[in-house]
Amino acid sequence: MSVKPERLAPCLTAVRSKNPLVHCITNYVTANDCANALLAVGASPVMADDIAEMEDLVSIADALVINIGTLNERVVRSMRTAMAAAARKGVPILLDPVGAGASRLRTDTARAFIAEFPLAAIRGNASEIGVLASGTGSSRGVDARDADGALDTVRENAIGLARSRSALVAVTGAVDVVTDGEETRYVRNGHPLLPRITGSGCMLSAVAGAFLGACRDAGGAARLDALTAALCLSGFAGELAATDEGTGAFRVRLIDVLSRLDEAAFAGGIRCDGPC
Amino acid sequence: MSVKPERLAPCLTAVRSKNPLVHCITNYVTANDCANALLAVGASPVMADDIAEMEDLVSIADALVINIGTLNERVVRSMRTAMAAAARKGVPILLDPVGAGASRLRTDTARAFIAEFPLAAIRGNASEIGVLASGTGSSRGVDARDADGALDTVRENAIGLARSRSALVAVTGAVDVVTDGEETRYVRNGHPLLPRITGSGCMLSAVAGAFLGACRDAGGAARLDALTAALCLSGFAGELAATDEGTGAFRVRLIDVLSRLDEAAFAGGIRCDGPC
Amino acid sequence: MSVKPERLAPCLTAVRSKNPLVHCITNYVTANDCANALLAVGASPVMADDIAEMEDLVSIADALVINIGTLNERVVRSMRTAMAAAARKGVPILLDPVGAGASRLRTDTARAFIAEFPLAAIRGNASEIGVLASGTGSSRGVDARDADGALDTVRENAIGLARSRSALVAVTGAVDVVTDGEETRYVRNGHPLLPRITGSGCMLSAVAGAFLGACRDAGGAARLDALTAALCLSGFAGELAATDEGTGAFRVRLIDVLSRLDEAAFAGGIRCDGPC
Repeated sequence: MSVKPERLAPCLTAVRSKNPLVHCITNYVTANDCANALLAVGASPVMADDIAEMEDLVSIADALVINIGTLNERVVRSMRTAMAAAARKGVPILLDPVGAGASRLRTDTARAFIAEFPLAAIRGNASEIGVLASGTGSSRGVDARDADGALDTVRENAIGLARSRSALVAVTGAVDVVTDGEETRYVRNGHPLLPRITGSGCMLSAVAGAFLGACRDAGGAARLDALTAALCLSGFAGELAATDEGTGAFRVRLIDVLSRLDEAAFAGGIRCDGPC
Repeated sequence: MSVKPERLAPCLTAVRSKNPLVHCITNYVTANDCANALLAVGASPVMADDIAEMEDLVSIADALVINIGTLNERVVRSMRTAMAAAARKGVPILLDPVGAGASRLRTDTARAFIAEFPLAAIRGNASEIGVLASGTGSSRGVDARDADGALDTVRENAIGLARSRSALVAVTGAVDVVTDGEETRYVRNGHPLLPRITGSGCMLSAVAGAFLGACRDAGGAARLDALTAALCLSGFAGELAATDEGTGAFRVRLIDVLSRLDEAAFAGGIRCDGPC
Repeated sequence: MSVKPERLAPCLTAVRSKNPLVHCITNYVTANDCANALLAVGASPVMADDIAEMEDLVSIADALVINIGTLNERVVRSMRTAMAAAARKGVPILLDPVGAGASRLRTDTARAFIAEFPLAAIRGNASEIGVLASGTGSSRGVDARDADGALDTVRENAIGLARSRSALVAVTGAVDVVTDGEETRYVRNGHPLLPRITGSGCMLSAVAGAFLGACRDAGGAARLDALTAALCLSGFAGELAATDEGTGAFRVRLIDVLSRLDEAAFAGGIRCDGPC
């Protein structure tokens, strides 16, 4: 059964009209991509990681995105301070556990974060979410393309993690799985070029933060729709941006599409099944 | 009254012929954009922030650009060491107080820098300059697009800050204001797409550093022309780069234009009024 | 005498089929470019620099690329830990001594690294390699375009360094020189636009790491071919990417070409002389 596009597509318009401020503590590899993706969809990025300004910046933010792509001890402390502030202020937190499973540091840090803080959402690939769901496993680097796993396993991991942490969980791959632990959806938007550029996952997480920020005062159903919409948007943008020029042009066109797409065109491209 | 283009446009040729070395201590979000913008206009970037090499690098630099976009305690110490060295050696310093007003850390750091070091120029948006000029105020994140304020207030803030610190001050927005405290000019070049990409302000600050570096041994009038020319160039490049493909293509075209523009074409596009 | 293209071009196919994991400890200016270049040629990037995860990440890597472009004390410690682990595990290490000669910190750090660790390869410009070869000299910033020096000097420096450190040495410039200390080759691929963007050298070093990683279990002759092939690929990609649109488009097209080029087209473009 399809999730009706008219339920998801307005989330894009909400971001464009509410212009949520998204505070990202993220890696230096794709920070530029994340900032440009946020601006493209109509959000405002704040990229900052010094512990001394976490309280101030979280207090003006509509969402907090934590990405451990190039984590270090200093920034992990800032992340904790920012998440604690966000928890107090009701700012939704999205965690992107980049590379969980590839090193003990990443695995332990991601597990500690999900144990310590009330996350609104967790977004990773099958390998990363598997590690967090099972407490075991390993992955081969951060783009673990061959680790998508069977969709059923992905689905079980996502639901298990969502229930145990009371968080939305999104697992991206050839088919994306998104769940709140009760309702689960499959997002079939996407393109094989997306994993061939760095930052497609990070940009999605940043954009998902914007979508959650635009409905921060709404209930759980609205949040699941917002996260689903962000997954559909990212995948559909990949479809529209696809080109045989190469991956450099694809990356540029991805931002182009995000900056131009309107609600009607977005609604026409959504491919999402659920509940399933 | 227009500022004559033939007074400003040769500043671009000076950068191209003198190839100033611009030492940037900047943020990790837009460092790549800044380096490419500097190369495009004919300058040489050095991006480095370890305190142990600040003396050595400032001693070979023609300008020092300090951008607090992703400041942290370690880098703030390096910035101080670099600015102290630049002050001793007569290397012009440009400060971009990114996000001043958005956190106490940024506000305090920017204010301390302008109190402690003899800056050649300060370049920010209306909100950031307002905070530095008034000692009060707040801004909503670093792209505070809605905080441009009335042009008269911007002008007063700029002149007040320029006089109190004996520095050039440039405030960018729909109309840019640039002043040395005595002569004030309005730059009417620019395009609405510029604030829709990250780094347009950072790139302008880096390029302005190159323009100041190319005339580092000249007097105050030459410096005001150099900073004005950098503002005109950035805005005019935005006009020429404008496209309806989207913001990804716009960002690429902005560097294209900077790398191709010659003095004659630049002179033909300058829109600058003053004194006013 | 030409090095036969059919000896070098298969190295690209090897990278595409073996998908080597390349761990880069690199600078924040061009980290995104390096990751995208690695993905484009068919490798998998891991960009990480916290000391606590160096052992884990090196143990799954096929190559380690050390780039001192924005070095700092913390990251230098991580580099040492990573290189020590790589040495124990037989993971080939490539060093890019960015800016050696421009500051004592860079010179000393690069010299210490080549003294302490068994490097597979060192890749720099004429000025950087000259500093490492001679123990003296200075360079003007990291893009020292005017310091290419006479080709004979470059060749002598490269051979001297290669012999003293038992490492491959590649010096890039208008003509590239690559040597294992016994056999020396000139790579004549390249384009004047390459030094007009930031990151062309860093991307080459990352890609060279991928080429070394794809043949990590092969002998010395295979490694020299792999490094030579990476130089040819980078230069030839620059030739194919060349455009009069500007340097922004050139940078995008460079990634495009790397992502599309196949072995046959690559073989047709290789211009390499040796032994010489």
